Amino acid sequence: MKDKSNNNKNEFIPNWTEEAPKAGSYRSIFKWGDPKAFKHPNNELYSLFKSELGLTDNDFKNKINEGHEMVVCDSPVNITNDQIDSLISIVGSENVATDDYSRVKYSSGKTMEEVTKLRARTIDKVNDVVVHPRDKDDVQKIVAYCNNEKIPINAYGGGSSVNFGLAPAKGGISLALNTHMNKIISFNENNQTVLVQPGMMGPAYEDILNNAPEKLNARRKYTGGHFPQSFEFSSVGGWVVTLGSGQQSSYYGDAYDLVVSQEFVTPSGNFVTLDYPATATGPKVNDIMKGSEGSFGILVELTMKVFRYTPENQQSFAFIFPTWEAAAAASREITQGEFGMPSVFRISDPEETVMALKLYRVEGTIFDKIIRMRGFQPMQRCLYIGQTEGEKGFSKHVKKMVKKVCKAHGAMYLTGYPLKNWKHGRFSDPYMREDAHDYGIILDTVESPVTWDNLHKLHEGVRKFVKNRPNTMCLTHASHFYPQGTNLYFIFMAKYSDLDEYKAFLEGIMDAVLEHGGSPSHHHGVGKMFAPFMERHLGKEQMAILQALKNHFDPNNIMNPGQLGLGK
Amino acid sequence: MKDKSNNNKNEFIPNWTEEAPKAGSYRSIFKWGDPKAFKHPNNELYSLFKSELGLTDNDFKNKINEGHEMVVCDSPVNITNDQIDSLISIVGSENVATDDYSRVKYSSGKTMEEVTKLRARTIDKVNDVVVHPRDKDDVQKIVAYCNNEKIPINAYGGGSSVNFGLAPAKGGISLALNTHMNKIISFNENNQTVLVQPGMMGPAYEDILNNAPEKLNARRKYTGGHFPQSFEFSSVGGWVVTLGSGQQSSYYGDAYDLVVSQEFVTPSGNFVTLDYPATATGPKVNDIMKGSEGSFGILVELTMKVFRYTPENQQSFAFIFPTWEAAAAASREITQGEFGMPSVFRISDPEETVMALKLYRVEGTIFDKIIRMRGFQPMQRCLYIGQTEGEKGFSKHVKKMVKKVCKAHGAMYLTGYPLKNWKHGRFSDPYMREDAHDYGIILDTVESPVTWDNLHKLHEGVRKFVKNRPNTMCLTHASHFYPQGTNLYFIFMAKYSDLDEYKAFLEGIMDAVLEHGGSPSHHHGVGKMFAPFMERHLGKEQMAILQALKNHFDPNNIMNPGQLGLGK
Repeated sequence: MKDKSNNNKNEFIPNWTEEAPKAGSYRSIFKWGDPKAFKHPNNELYSLFKSELGLTDNDFKNKINEGHEMVVCDSPVNITNDQIDSLISIVGSENVATDDYSRVKYSSGKTMEEVTKLRARTIDKVNDVVVHPRDKDDVQKIVAYCNNEKIPINAYGGGSSVNFGLAPAKGGISLALNTHMNKIISFNENNQTVLVQPGMMGPAYEDILNNAPEKLNARRKYTGGHFPQSFEFSSVGGWVVTLGSGQQSSYYGDAYDLVVSQEFVTPSGNFVTLDYPATATGPKVNDIMKGSEGSFGILVELTMKVFRYTPENQQSFAFIFPTWEAAAAASREITQGEFGMPSVFRISDPEETVMALKLYRVEGTIFDKIIRMRGFQPMQRCLYIGQTEGEKGFSKHVKKMVKKVCKAHGAMYLTGYPLKNWKHGRFSDPYMREDAHDYGIILDTVESPVTWDNLHKLHEGVRKFVKNRPNTMCLTHASHFYPQGTNLYFIFMAKYSDLDEYKAFLEGIMDAVLEHGGSPSHHHGVGKMFAPFMERHLGKEQMAILQALKNHFDPNNIMNPGQLGLGK
Repeated sequence: MKDKSNNNKNEFIPNWTEEAPKAGSYRSIFKWGDPKAFKHPNNELYSLFKSELGLTDNDFKNKINEGHEMVVCDSPVNITNDQIDSLISIVGSENVATDDYSRVKYSSGKTMEEVTKLRARTIDKVNDVVVHPRDKDDVQKIVAYCNNEKIPINAYGGGSSVNFGLAPAKGGISLALNTHMNKIISFNENNQTVLVQPGMMGPAYEDILNNAPEKLNARRKYTGGHFPQSFEFSSVGGWVVTLGSGQQSSYYGDAYDLVVSQEFVTPSGNFVTLDYPATATGPKVNDIMKGSEGSFGILVELTMKVFRYTPENQQSFAFIFPTWEAAAAASREITQGEFGMPSVFRISDPEETVMALKLYRVEGTIFDKIIRMRGFQPMQRCLYIGQTEGEKGFSKHVKKMVKKVCKAHGAMYLTGYPLKNWKHGRFSDPYMREDAHDYGIILDTVESPVTWDNLHKLHEGVRKFVKNRPNTMCLTHASHFYPQGTNLYFIFMAKYSDLDEYKAFLEGIMDAVLEHGGSPSHHHGVGKMFAPFMERHLGKEQMAILQALKNHFDPNNIMNPGQLGLGK
């Protein structure tokens, strides 16, 4: 459905793609999200893109590399027929695939580089075979067999990786965990925990928990509390092994905090960590495994914390601040104020605020007029949107305190209206990526955690690099808050001459991030994309510790070689 | 100062020791806490002990093995004069000690076995030399030197270990970190973090934070939020490397949660973990090191979270529940209710409640009368005491909700009076241990985390074992709460025929804990006492992971060998 605001007669509207990709096409692999769902830039955004990126309507007349062709993969299958037969004997022939499409699909994530190459029908290294294990016994047999035969195994969860996490550096097997291993095994209402298979996707997981009285015979409704932007296309196991965060994690905690225990299958042995709420029995193996991104072994089951589901207690709010400094100072005060945390908590920098006021439809409303009247200046003012939840009185009190702090920092209250609009598009905004890319425009993101005392230095340092390139947008927000700091999420958007120019630019951004005290990742993980930055970031000694663990679990280096910069 | 209630004319009062141990005596090593501070059982407790332990006044007339003798250590120094000279060349002769007293003191913790042996002048394996490093450079040189020479190093923090954590299984060096490395290095008010040396003791740490405006030139007052019962005699580094918890940890988090970053010196290299509030750059080395109890390397600096210090916002409360089941159910509801957590949160089982009502002076008050009138039965009723804190409105709201939940579970409100009395003795109650032990009575503790669904099974299982022995008290409370469960802290007290009988009994308790789904430790750590239970508890695979880390950090097995059951 096209956006209503695009129906203005006198304006040119690009012919945004409105058809689901053909089955078997490149586009069906790289398209974000639901094949049949689309979100196009509204009129205001389209105008903004043109002016900011130095483009005209003419740049939006001819699409480039739409990827409608059927996938062809010339890469030979590098494992033997005997080996394939052995895999078939474990999981059945219906669960072993060597067709071109499967091999390419299960070797691809959603990085702009992968998408650009798929559009150009350039196939990088792919897996030799895709295997769909039915249960953890299958995984055990596969890992044991592959360890003997020295066949690499690359785990595949929801497929939403944005860091080459799914790219099989040495070929081998892509292990598709979301095909069969995607169910809740048991629910423990006393402990508020759920035992789940790693390949369960976000919406199915949340749906069962929200409807726990009917679906789990529970006394109450529950929520998993984890809502990354990739929610619809990411798996519970994927959240944990990549250390994901969600849009409500400032209240519920990051994926790291949600995991009570895990069962792992590794080449050196299988184990379940224990489900105590706390222990003092030495270093916590349960925590050591988190973030291992398939390089230690395969996560086959996990016990997750769940929370009471009380949407009726949610309170939403938005504020406009006179400056980024004021928004950041208020955020710190809220985070350190010890009155409880909002769940949704997002401050946009001045450049992102320009876009956000359009995207969340504040522009043109009565709020817009008052904001102008009161002297909040474009490219200075900053939007803060948020939501509180939890028990009713708690949620109300947090909102009350947020208001108090924001007002003390010169902010104006905008009601819950912008949050409502943000919520509406919270998972669909990335769908605009394909629209832009159809016309050669790359929209990508880099993100980093940051302590409060380094927030402005990192923000300015990265912005300076990005904005030094003409016709390049740089939108920044902070969306995950901790008493000790927050994250900075940089969205950059531009038309590049070619992939190499884009890659060099991205590398420059990463340099700027590290140079100004940032980390390669707050919640996107490492994969193979950030692997080259790991040693520079963590130092040799920390990398040696991770490599020592790798050597212990995976002496033959078959588990996702190259992931995290380990076992190269 | 003797307790007033002991001044009743007609009753026999044991001659509780009231003098500070002589310098250089065994007693000066094993006495808990401040040499000049004492806390004796009040009259009601003394009567209770006699009746419950099957004793009479006659049993309290002759003290046994008071340990007033000067320490003698016949154990030869097993490192060479050259090696001692080398250590002297690093830290100076004033920081190297080989006298009998130092060797015994720095090899001893506070387990009942160690105390019993010290009273009997039985010296187990001791260190060869005590070294007091002045700074982290000293530690680096010592570790490098000892690694070359294969001399074991056993770190010593505050000395309050209750699990043979300080016992040098293979002799070598005791590294006393609290002598010089006991200061705050810097304070970052924006990030609410403090960089501290590991040997800083609890009270000094808290005092500086509480007085941050004067002592750190800060805008506000702060608290570390960590108050183990050993607060006065434990070190900040010790809290972290042993995974301690404090009496307010249900609100502030366990020591594990308070550590932002750490600097470690290990035989295989030195490193600082980064101080981001969150990261997704693979398994978190910062977390891997927590709980390593000196077996990977020496923690030389750590960045800790601090919190706003607002005692004026604290709200205290107490309730009496009709049954343990009701107290546990209310606690679960409070913990899972998502209205924020109390900081102090303690429920006592029926047997502990008998003692608690005496210890916190509820017995004999108007409350006592009303409790009886309303039909709360002894050996059924359970005491719950607690405190809320944080921002004023938050703290009030948590208390309001706690009240609501407790009343719904049939509890009667007892005001903040019992909490006040608990608070008064919160760190001094263990001082009664020496009084009891002077008359051959052992008072010891075992504690375990537990999920909600296993709470009653574990409680009953351990109680059944302990109470099967005649004349043995078993007091249990839960004091650390999580949405997924709590801990059970068992205090047992009895007169044993000899040390072997006591040790066999303790082993039986540990068996009962593990058999009923408990863990060897919720917050006491592992040391060498629980090391033999580690593999049974964690399984071979998890132990192999810890051993792989040990091998990486400490290939020559010099770092506290035997600790955690590693590097035996």
